[in-house]
Amino acid sequence: MIVNGVTVKKDERIDDLHRNGYLLIQNAKYFCFGIDAVLLSSFAKIKKNEKVIDLGTGNGIIPILLSARYPSSYIIGLEIQETSVEMAIRSVRLNSLQDRIRIQKGNIKHLTKIFKPASFQVITVNPPYMNQGGGVLNVDDSKAIARHEICCNLKDIIEESSKALSFGGRFYMVHRPHRLVDILYTLRNYNIEPKTIRFVHPYVNKEPNMVLIEAIKYGKPMCKIMPPIIVYNEDGEYTDEINKIYYD
Amino acid sequence: MIVNGVTVKKDERIDDLHRNGYLLIQNAKYFCFGIDAVLLSSFAKIKKNEKVIDLGTGNGIIPILLSARYPSSYIIGLEIQETSVEMAIRSVRLNSLQDRIRIQKGNIKHLTKIFKPASFQVITVNPPYMNQGGGVLNVDDSKAIARHEICCNLKDIIEESSKALSFGGRFYMVHRPHRLVDILYTLRNYNIEPKTIRFVHPYVNKEPNMVLIEAIKYGKPMCKIMPPIIVYNEDGEYTDEINKIYYD
Repeated sequence: MIVNGVTVKKDERIDDLHRNGYLLIQNAKYFCFGIDAVLLSSFAKIKKNEKVIDLGTGNGIIPILLSARYPSSYIIGLEIQETSVEMAIRSVRLNSLQDRIRIQKGNIKHLTKIFKPASFQVITVNPPYMNQGGGVLNVDDSKAIARHEICCNLKDIIEESSKALSFGGRFYMVHRPHRLVDILYTLRNYNIEPKTIRFVHPYVNKEPNMVLIEAIKYGKPMCKIMPPIIVYNEDGEYTDEINKIYYD
Repeated sequence: MIVNGVTVKKDERIDDLHRNGYLLIQNAKYFCFGIDAVLLSSFAKIKKNEKVIDLGTGNGIIPILLSARYPSSYIIGLEIQETSVEMAIRSVRLNSLQDRIRIQKGNIKHLTKIFKPASFQVITVNPPYMNQGGGVLNVDDSKAIARHEICCNLKDIIEESSKALSFGGRFYMVHRPHRLVDILYTLRNYNIEPKTIRFVHPYVNKEPNMVLIEAIKYGKPMCKIMPPIIVYNEDGEYTDEINKIYYD
């Protein structure tokens, strides 16, 4: 199938992102985006003329959502898996975003070999959540690489991000709350000071299943914990805040 | 005034703790306990025959509340200020808890000079919240010492606690959320791994103003963030959970 001059392959589907009419090509065989990518895109803040990179961009969901939110942004998406790179490039073309989003193949570990150190003002990352040994490995390699710390781990990501960020540059991450201490500890060790933390709870009386973190290169110690994001109300429907994040 | 054979001085009042009929002598001139002490006492867990110390015990509120919750516990309260030590001792006597609570005068910095290293299974602490330089100093020295890091700071408390805790011993702290990264970072640096974290929000849509932390000496990395504690409902009344913590 060809849409807007872009090939959409067998097994692939096109999802409407409810943002500027933007669309995304996905394949259920590979990693499909979830609420974490949407929340991270809403949490990250980009100012004019800032150079932005999304690490482990997968199908390109975060650069595309950020492009919708920040119409003058220029964003690079770094992705190690060839199939994801190729699919993300087609989604970029499908939305005519070639001038504003560039998908680059590469390992996060080589971030400052591919790009100059201190050359980014903003980094976003929705990394593999499972540390080695944790979680059951998915037999499908592609999903496993997206979900597990196989090609890079938390330390690699933070170490390279610290090198890649300019002074005062901002690092935005979504992760699982059980890694909170690992994340905060490693960020401070690499001079990216955690400044804003927001937990996402499925229901108000449940433990959070996601955490959003904003950290600043060479920032001063002192952090702010935001009000919780609650995903569902008592009736199991999206809360107003989630509806706003998805559709406003 | 003499109550149960215990002198209650001018300017002092007796508060009912709604626990076992226990009472507390307080003086509004000095530091009076707040919801943070109540929440910490409810958050901390004590097993049979564990040796417990409350650091910076003030008027003894935490040992007395813990004694009500754990009828077979034996708790030491360490306090640097003579007026607080003397007042806490009278509250202990007022409740006939002399056999189960001992108030000891001393600086937290000298914890493992006063007591043997690795001799406690549980430490609780509601420390001064304000770091040096932060917050306006209260002209009243007694309140300032209870609120500001004058006699000891976060690092002192955690360093000494690490020495004082036995292997697997538990550390319970209540603090302000803006110090979260400092607390978690320092705990891990001193081999007390943060394991359970709970934020206390005045209202569900507001930032937390307290954080409860359980950390374990030589614990493995991996933490749990609990559901938030919400203090007030929409009508400005205590939530069921807070009523339960105060009165059940």
